[in-house]
Amino acid sequence: MSGDQGDYVLSDLQHGKAECRLVKVDRSGERHVLHDLNVTTQLRGDFATAYTQGDNAHVHATDTQKNTVYALARQHGVDSPEQFLLDLADHWTAQPWVTGTWFHAEQFAWERLPANGHSFVRTGEATRTAWVQTYGDQTFVLAGLSDLVLLKSTGSEFHGFPRDRFTTLGETSDRILATSVSATWRYDPLDVNWDVAHAAIRTALLDAFATTHSLALQQTIHAMGAAALDACPEVAEIRISCPNKHHFLVDLEPFGLDNPGEVFFAADRPYGLISATLSRIDATEPRAWAGIA
Amino acid sequence: MSGDQGDYVLSDLQHGKAECRLVKVDRSGERHVLHDLNVTTQLRGDFATAYTQGDNAHVHATDTQKNTVYALARQHGVDSPEQFLLDLADHWTAQPWVTGTWFHAEQFAWERLPANGHSFVRTGEATRTAWVQTYGDQTFVLAGLSDLVLLKSTGSEFHGFPRDRFTTLGETSDRILATSVSATWRYDPLDVNWDVAHAAIRTALLDAFATTHSLALQQTIHAMGAAALDACPEVAEIRISCPNKHHFLVDLEPFGLDNPGEVFFAADRPYGLISATLSRIDATEPRAWAGIA
Amino acid sequence: MSGDQGDYVLSDLQHGKAECRLVKVDRSGERHVLHDLNVTTQLRGDFATAYTQGDNAHVHATDTQKNTVYALARQHGVDSPEQFLLDLADHWTAQPWVTGTWFHAEQFAWERLPANGHSFVRTGEATRTAWVQTYGDQTFVLAGLSDLVLLKSTGSEFHGFPRDRFTTLGETSDRILATSVSATWRYDPLDVNWDVAHAAIRTALLDAFATTHSLALQQTIHAMGAAALDACPEVAEIRISCPNKHHFLVDLEPFGLDNPGEVFFAADRPYGLISATLSRIDATEPRAWAGIA
Amino acid sequence: MSGDQGDYVLSDLQHGKAECRLVKVDRSGERHVLHDLNVTTQLRGDFATAYTQGDNAHVHATDTQKNTVYALARQHGVDSPEQFLLDLADHWTAQPWVTGTWFHAEQFAWERLPANGHSFVRTGEATRTAWVQTYGDQTFVLAGLSDLVLLKSTGSEFHGFPRDRFTTLGETSDRILATSVSATWRYDPLDVNWDVAHAAIRTALLDAFATTHSLALQQTIHAMGAAALDACPEVAEIRISCPNKHHFLVDLEPFGLDNPGEVFFAADRPYGLISATLSRIDATEPRAWAGIA
Repeated sequence: MSGDQGDYVLSDLQHGKAECRLVKVDRSGERHVLHDLNVTTQLRGDFATAYTQGDNAHVHATDTQKNTVYALARQHGVDSPEQFLLDLADHWTAQPWVTGTWFHAEQFAWERLPANGHSFVRTGEATRTAWVQTYGDQTFVLAGLSDLVLLKSTGSEFHGFPRDRFTTLGETSDRILATSVSATWRYDPLDVNWDVAHAAIRTALLDAFATTHSLALQQTIHAMGAAALDACPEVAEIRISCPNKHHFLVDLEPFGLDNPGEVFFAADRPYGLISATLSRIDATEPRAWAGIA
Repeated sequence: MSGDQGDYVLSDLQHGKAECRLVKVDRSGERHVLHDLNVTTQLRGDFATAYTQGDNAHVHATDTQKNTVYALARQHGVDSPEQFLLDLADHWTAQPWVTGTWFHAEQFAWERLPANGHSFVRTGEATRTAWVQTYGDQTFVLAGLSDLVLLKSTGSEFHGFPRDRFTTLGETSDRILATSVSATWRYDPLDVNWDVAHAAIRTALLDAFATTHSLALQQTIHAMGAAALDACPEVAEIRISCPNKHHFLVDLEPFGLDNPGEVFFAADRPYGLISATLSRIDATEPRAWAGIA
Repeated sequence: MSGDQGDYVLSDLQHGKAECRLVKVDRSGERHVLHDLNVTTQLRGDFATAYTQGDNAHVHATDTQKNTVYALARQHGVDSPEQFLLDLADHWTAQPWVTGTWFHAEQFAWERLPANGHSFVRTGEATRTAWVQTYGDQTFVLAGLSDLVLLKSTGSEFHGFPRDRFTTLGETSDRILATSVSATWRYDPLDVNWDVAHAAIRTALLDAFATTHSLALQQTIHAMGAAALDACPEVAEIRISCPNKHHFLVDLEPFGLDNPGEVFFAADRPYGLISATLSRIDATEPRAWAGIA
Repeated sequence: MSGDQGDYVLSDLQHGKAECRLVKVDRSGERHVLHDLNVTTQLRGDFATAYTQGDNAHVHATDTQKNTVYALARQHGVDSPEQFLLDLADHWTAQPWVTGTWFHAEQFAWERLPANGHSFVRTGEATRTAWVQTYGDQTFVLAGLSDLVLLKSTGSEFHGFPRDRFTTLGETSDRILATSVSATWRYDPLDVNWDVAHAAIRTALLDAFATTHSLALQQTIHAMGAAALDACPEVAEIRISCPNKHHFLVDLEPFGLDNPGEVFFAADRPYGLISATLSRIDATEPRAWAGIA
């Protein structure tokens, strides 16, 4: 996977098709089942001559990779984003010159309307995410969710932090805590019911957010991670990143008004940004996380 | 509202504060009530000398307009976006030099989590919109929703359209119909329960979309508009604009596969764009729609 | 253009293809000439039965409208966005059932790289805009630019505004003035060299922004509008809308530091929003501005 | 940096303030000098008790981190994004409980208008990027650019790629090649004139793009990377990621028209995505790239 030009070393070669928008309708039952995915493929392998000489003999065209997404959706169906990416991985790891793969899917949620079995409204709540990565025979499966926007209107404090020359923030024992959770976890072993596991983890995250009396967003993140590990024994490790979406209590005193935790300004930028990983003992696999934000 | 500089005529003067992000928590009950708004204010009036001479004696600063949003939220509370904009209109039409006003709010939806009365998840489904506009004593109230993304996996046809030199589209008797509804309606009379009316209209739009066997997106738009007018006698007119979010059936024949309405490519651009207005007889009020996309 | 269903009146029927991304390369010379457009078409006419009955006999498919964009680009070339939209208008107004049209284009700017005649870098500075609208025999041409982001680091004051109960803003005799200009103007008569006129107006706007010592953003807007009318006799009227992109001087006093106009926080929301129209006497044509934000 | 809760291992703790928008005006000369930055800070260290117990005794508040950005901008000025991030690193690595840091800046480009020394227009062409990361005494400096949109209207071919069951793409000896370059490079040693180096590398990238007759986007990426390493001896390694922004030749044959490389449809999604790293021998430093997309 590397070549030389003069004194330079070529590495980390990847190519694929990004953001293939795939909508799969399963019409086998009275009620249609919809999978709405955004799929990205990346192949790694012996492609150096394309870079050094423009020789494409080993380069599976990204157009071919796109076609393969749609063809495999027909051949294998789409049960879950994880399973679909595994089908893609099976296909591509069997091709010549391919030594590794990286696949990603976003899945958008739709809710069936009551009128009939084939009408849907898209719920904007969170995006389900999945990744499959292979290195030779080794396969990693990760899943997650992004843009899960949560808010607590009480039950959040922040105090006891260090005060230095540049500290002006006051302490508070009651603030709004709001965030947009990005959580990604790695499954191991891979004998998982993907939909059931994802739903259980999502519920655990929501419940931990709601029930943790928060002294720091860090504490809430830890509680959410622990809840996910508790909820699903196949989760080996979980990474959570949370912006602190600041809601500032508006100072109404100049107008002769009090403001007992009622009127807030929701700020855009800057925002706090807090993250951590929680894992079972000896469970870290750094290679599984390559290229995952 | 107009001035002269040499031979030029100055008109359409407006100024205000755009996108005041206001989160209002009503903590009076066991279960907190959340209103999450994005409010824009615009004043019209006798402000010409600011333009022609930089004389700000009549210019209510946009910063003052922002402060007023937060202060009135404390003084009057927030029951609904329509009521809150009416409170703003009452305040500003009473100020000197102001002869007209234009207010807009987006309201984002949050769902209470089961764990307690103060934890919420933001549902991304559609944004509720409202406008209040005044011209002297005349007040207009409009409401709507945007980004309501709907899809039917069957029950949609498109054929019988004219074929000219540049027509290549085939006819179809079964396609995916997907759109993102923008609907705006004007209330008249104004004696309305804003939340009840909005919920009834939203339900009518969803139901009309689902139950209309569609021969054209135009037909679905008409059905949705009529359903809204049927559902709420205080709706005088409604404008609906719908992109046709194309879902193209992927041609899998080159791969030896059929595709009986199962595998689709969801396209971004270009997209169809269809719109219409439906109103009760003699109900149009063009001034009410000024500055509303 | 209107129909009846029960007691309801149908009006404002429009349909077309939005955001057709068209890149046209003129390879006739040594140096290629690039036009990069985003084109939207809308037809108005006798389409009511599509809405009321799903009868598409009069509905020129939006797919056909898209094809026409690309075909006319080949037949007529693309000299300027205005000319290209006029070619589209000529084509569509001649078709049956079409009584009016509305066309819009955005044009993105590319700069030729020095190495050869066919390599380009996209400059993100402003987007050139154009609209052509017809009502029967009447044709309107408008042009403009959006997202022209300008900043003055001095030469801007704001004081003398009214102070009421909700006013807290201090007066200033030296602030940053920053905005993102949206300007749209109407040409009349239509015997215009579109590229020359656009360049002259853009230069006039930039120069007026830079050279106006500003006592209010309103004053700068007026100066820019007057400069555009001065620069191009074929501009009949111009509308300018400018956010006040606030740059707040950071209070460094708590840290024992002064801040003599050096360190600013650039805020996102909320922002001031100021607009006005400047026109020659008796030059307003409200119909020309329908559907133009 | 890690703790235990039950059987779980806590790691990768980070917190900071994201997207501090800092505009710094240097008014010392006749012509003002503007730096427009978007700064993100992240601290790593002994913060586990905040996660496990909500004890913030070691947590430098993100608000304090924001204040520090603005205070250091006043104290040290802003000469370049790299130098400013190094100033931040010096400050924070000296604080208790901090064992590592990660800083990022985007810098937006402004061009001075001819009229005077204090008026500017923002050029949207590319965003300059920089990162400083420390691990104890070790400091890494990376720089780059993103959203550099380039296009060649000829001089690009693509053929000779493998054909399998799912390949339908035709070969071409003349296509449009368009991309949006993201390039990030690591400086080593750190004795660099940051502005001079960045300008030289930008020029090298543009020139390599323009002058490489491209048989694959891979080949162009390699040429750009080699040109950057050639241009600046302090660049130890460079990573380049390029979408293939497809411009499809429109098939005009159904309309009786030819299309000799003139009329293209610029597609959004999906897009090819190609990347690689080019480095000097023994120059890779994986830790320097942590958290850099």
